[in-house]
Amino acid sequence: MQTSALYHRTESEYAFLYKPREFVVRLRTAKDDVQRVILYYGDPFDRRPRKSGGTRWHYQRVIMNKGLATKDHQYWEIKVRPQFSRIQYAFHVLGKDGTEIFYGELGCAAFNPGEIQDAANYFRLPYFHKIDMAKTPEWVKHTVWYQIFPERFANGDPSNDPEGTLPWDPDRAPTREDFYGGDLQGIIDHLDYLQKLGVNGLYLTPVFKAHSNHKYDTVDYLEIDPAFGDKRIFKALIDEAHARGMKVMLDAVFNHIGDESLPWQDVLRNQEQSRFKDWFHIRKFPASYEATEDNEYARKLTYATFAFTPHMPKLNTANPEVQAYLLDVAQYWIKQFDIDAWRLDVADEIDHHFWRKFATTCKRLKPDFYILGEAWHNAAPWLNGDEFTGVMNYQFTGLINRKFLFKNISNIDFIHGLNQQLMSYRAQTSEAMFNVLDSHDTPRILTLANQDKDAVKAAIAFTFLQKGVPCIYYGDEISMAGDNDPDNRRPMQWDPDKQDQEMYEFMQALIKVRKQYAVFLSEAPMQWLDAANGALLKLVRSGRTIDFVCLFNTSNQQQEVKLKNGDQEIFSRRLDDIDGRAYLLPEGFVILKRWKK
Amino acid sequence: MQTSALYHRTESEYAFLYKPREFVVRLRTAKDDVQRVILYYGDPFDRRPRKSGGTRWHYQRVIMNKGLATKDHQYWEIKVRPQFSRIQYAFHVLGKDGTEIFYGELGCAAFNPGEIQDAANYFRLPYFHKIDMAKTPEWVKHTVWYQIFPERFANGDPSNDPEGTLPWDPDRAPTREDFYGGDLQGIIDHLDYLQKLGVNGLYLTPVFKAHSNHKYDTVDYLEIDPAFGDKRIFKALIDEAHARGMKVMLDAVFNHIGDESLPWQDVLRNQEQSRFKDWFHIRKFPASYEATEDNEYARKLTYATFAFTPHMPKLNTANPEVQAYLLDVAQYWIKQFDIDAWRLDVADEIDHHFWRKFATTCKRLKPDFYILGEAWHNAAPWLNGDEFTGVMNYQFTGLINRKFLFKNISNIDFIHGLNQQLMSYRAQTSEAMFNVLDSHDTPRILTLANQDKDAVKAAIAFTFLQKGVPCIYYGDEISMAGDNDPDNRRPMQWDPDKQDQEMYEFMQALIKVRKQYAVFLSEAPMQWLDAANGALLKLVRSGRTIDFVCLFNTSNQQQEVKLKNGDQEIFSRRLDDIDGRAYLLPEGFVILKRWKK
Repeated sequence: MQTSALYHRTESEYAFLYKPREFVVRLRTAKDDVQRVILYYGDPFDRRPRKSGGTRWHYQRVIMNKGLATKDHQYWEIKVRPQFSRIQYAFHVLGKDGTEIFYGELGCAAFNPGEIQDAANYFRLPYFHKIDMAKTPEWVKHTVWYQIFPERFANGDPSNDPEGTLPWDPDRAPTREDFYGGDLQGIIDHLDYLQKLGVNGLYLTPVFKAHSNHKYDTVDYLEIDPAFGDKRIFKALIDEAHARGMKVMLDAVFNHIGDESLPWQDVLRNQEQSRFKDWFHIRKFPASYEATEDNEYARKLTYATFAFTPHMPKLNTANPEVQAYLLDVAQYWIKQFDIDAWRLDVADEIDHHFWRKFATTCKRLKPDFYILGEAWHNAAPWLNGDEFTGVMNYQFTGLINRKFLFKNISNIDFIHGLNQQLMSYRAQTSEAMFNVLDSHDTPRILTLANQDKDAVKAAIAFTFLQKGVPCIYYGDEISMAGDNDPDNRRPMQWDPDKQDQEMYEFMQALIKVRKQYAVFLSEAPMQWLDAANGALLKLVRSGRTIDFVCLFNTSNQQQEVKLKNGDQEIFSRRLDDIDGRAYLLPEGFVILKRWKK
Repeated sequence: MQTSALYHRTESEYAFLYKPREFVVRLRTAKDDVQRVILYYGDPFDRRPRKSGGTRWHYQRVIMNKGLATKDHQYWEIKVRPQFSRIQYAFHVLGKDGTEIFYGELGCAAFNPGEIQDAANYFRLPYFHKIDMAKTPEWVKHTVWYQIFPERFANGDPSNDPEGTLPWDPDRAPTREDFYGGDLQGIIDHLDYLQKLGVNGLYLTPVFKAHSNHKYDTVDYLEIDPAFGDKRIFKALIDEAHARGMKVMLDAVFNHIGDESLPWQDVLRNQEQSRFKDWFHIRKFPASYEATEDNEYARKLTYATFAFTPHMPKLNTANPEVQAYLLDVAQYWIKQFDIDAWRLDVADEIDHHFWRKFATTCKRLKPDFYILGEAWHNAAPWLNGDEFTGVMNYQFTGLINRKFLFKNISNIDFIHGLNQQLMSYRAQTSEAMFNVLDSHDTPRILTLANQDKDAVKAAIAFTFLQKGVPCIYYGDEISMAGDNDPDNRRPMQWDPDKQDQEMYEFMQALIKVRKQYAVFLSEAPMQWLDAANGALLKLVRSGRTIDFVCLFNTSNQQQEVKLKNGDQEIFSRRLDDIDGRAYLLPEGFVILKRWKK
């Protein structure tokens, strides 16, 4: 047995409370190396008299479930509910080669009664604290998000258009500097459209006062950008959304501030004498840089910025004044306007101390507040329950793209990749992940798919069947295309004749399924059948009373699908009946509901 | 190569800031499996133009040091100092079998230029935040602690002796209920004794009002127990200690409160109507239990307690009222009396939210405050920099006992065990560990050693050469014996004729060495030479200009020691010269100082 491959870590994705008294344990072993894992566990203080004198520790045993696998590893998992909210535990691992070891905090030991009784080698969760448990608000699981880039969604009020606003033209690629006049009134005007589509969460990229069209260069966090409207209109938007059962998420850009903001302007003017000098990370005065031909890339910066752009000086979130300022902002929009969630821009470059205060602050006002971090990499350090609820799941996106759009990854590698993501986080965190397929920061999915709409549909349907909440980028539902920023930010196509109504209906139907089975699709364990099959991707979501059997044809030939008696077809595309047999055409898929016996 | 054995984790003991701009990276591989590891790293945003068009990511490479090893694993380690306080990194691992892989966040990939340029597979520390860095106060490294159990150290004021106080008799084993009259004045009276011994940190077990002799059943956290003195005397103790350059650490028992305390008495009286009912974890009213013949073990408890003792109801530290109350206590003794450290009883059974607030509160008053948790198991979840500075290092103790006192572990297994402890924590945390060899909770070291004083000396000397700060349990320096609680709590032996003056002088000399080389012994990397040697344990602490070469004879025969020209003997025991050759007798050891060329 490859004992060197074993890994477990207390209070992490390997050992966590899923519910206040329900503890999940996972173990990593080498792949195809272990035949069985038995968890030994009990209350650390539960010692009982031995007939021969002295005491012995009282334990229980349970066989762990063989869980998900990755390229190199097999995961094992089990839930236990100890009576007194305390646990110590260790693993009896039986190798396929017949080796038996007892694996605990001190490593691998021989498996024998002495080791079982030796408390020193046990892992511990000394006490179950609900306050420390990572929690996912129930409503998040029920949500299908829709991302809006306000400058480009709809122009509801031409009177607030900035100077030089261009005519609304979805067919033209915008430049980085263009303005089209989109605003909050435009969103209000189309809430019925969104409600009909079925989405019930709106994620707006920044709406606060800023000079750019994207508004990530905040000038004032406490003002709505005048080209977008004002607080009265913003209030109306929130209230109208809430009246339709839609949640609203705003974008908080707290890593950096715009260089036109008051604090940074004061620094530029007064340099070392500025009362804002400790709001930033200034390595040397004067705060300065050497410009290059690229407006977003400077040399010899004497202050920290986002990337190397001189126009986004990084805020010093360790400074209590900055903390107080930003926390006031966070509270203001919750208290005064009742927003439901914050999406946090460049969230992983801000310190944990700040995010913990931020989370405490938001949840004090609204216990089921959703906090979504932007993080393009593994985000485990922010997802222990006291900072973010979830992150934008770009690692998931990358896998989906490779499988369904680029078609350059085998089914087995794809499955391993997804499993690795799932094993990187606590179960409830996976349920809170924000599964974007595209956004204002990536090319649109249709463009990535090289206009192949069947591929797009398969990718989206697959995403809707995963743990984590899906998000649709505005316009995807009517087959808008667009390459990298700024092409992905074209004005929304509102001309019904140019909207892809078939795609709209597809999305509408899919959203309906997702919402109907929201909790099931969030929580039900995942199983991959016949994972080595290169042609048919088979996912089973396995609940208490029903299974969803999801089949995706990932080959370029039709594939027969064997239905069972009683299987109920929930949703499908490109499923053909030929001579009484069911076939999935290439890029076809079917979701079957199967009652458990 | 056993790729399944690879492990790395960002923002953990595998990847941490050691200094604000110094980042330490560790990688775990299988033992004897890998020939070389090269770290690829750079700024995530540092993309430079390619001659062929487009950009390429600019990276650096460095060969990682082969670090410490455990039974199954080899660790690799390197420090890097990226210019812009941001880093992404991955590992090029070359197996002994010739395999080459590129290991990153997504797992093992082929090693090729495409992978090197693929940002997705890199681990990241997105930004270096000093506020998130685990910090060890400088003074802690310079400290040699001395643990006092006040009821048994010295009776300086017979007027405050509790009723039934027994005559001071170090030769008699106490019962659990005995009182001997030890008090704070007794400590003050012997500060000169302690100063002469050389210790410069006093750890007092609880001094607050409580009924037992050990005072872990607090009645009032804001009062000095009347049998110990009063606040005036306590103030004098702190001031006298500080005047001698000694730090003082108190014991905070916040997991539970004594059942005679006001809040619990109120619960018993008023049950569900008590205004303190949410201060505890009461599962069902009335709060009650079924007593057994063991006073410390109850059945059918309807409320959470420490272990199963009905007399120590567990405090609900998630309740803001309880938090405020305990944080006030924490502050009071710092603000009013200037204590330097809190030792936290049963620390791992209290929630992380509370400890974070606690740490913030203490450090706000005293930035270099030391917070020491009691945790008998791996304490990584509390040691990320925002809760404890270190823990009582009982896992270390267990290894020392087995090697030097019980002699039932081989040198190689012992070294592997120590290395595993060191690799379980950030480097600065290892430097802040509290290396106890015995305490009020364990038998005394002399008793564990079966009265073998040479074994005791070797164990203590070895401990003083490790990372982490040593602590002497009162009386060990004069060879007091004592088995498990309560025998380990005998009154201190003050009769000079019955004190082991030879042991005292040994300790005094050793403490002097430790203090003289305090920073070196805290920080210098560790190397084990010739680890498979079963007779001679060889540790090298390797600094910039000097090495300490430490040799311990762990066999039962004399072992020759080969000195080099210029070696300076710092400290030794049982080192003999026979015919011009140096020999260590069994249990002998020598510390040599060797200048680097």
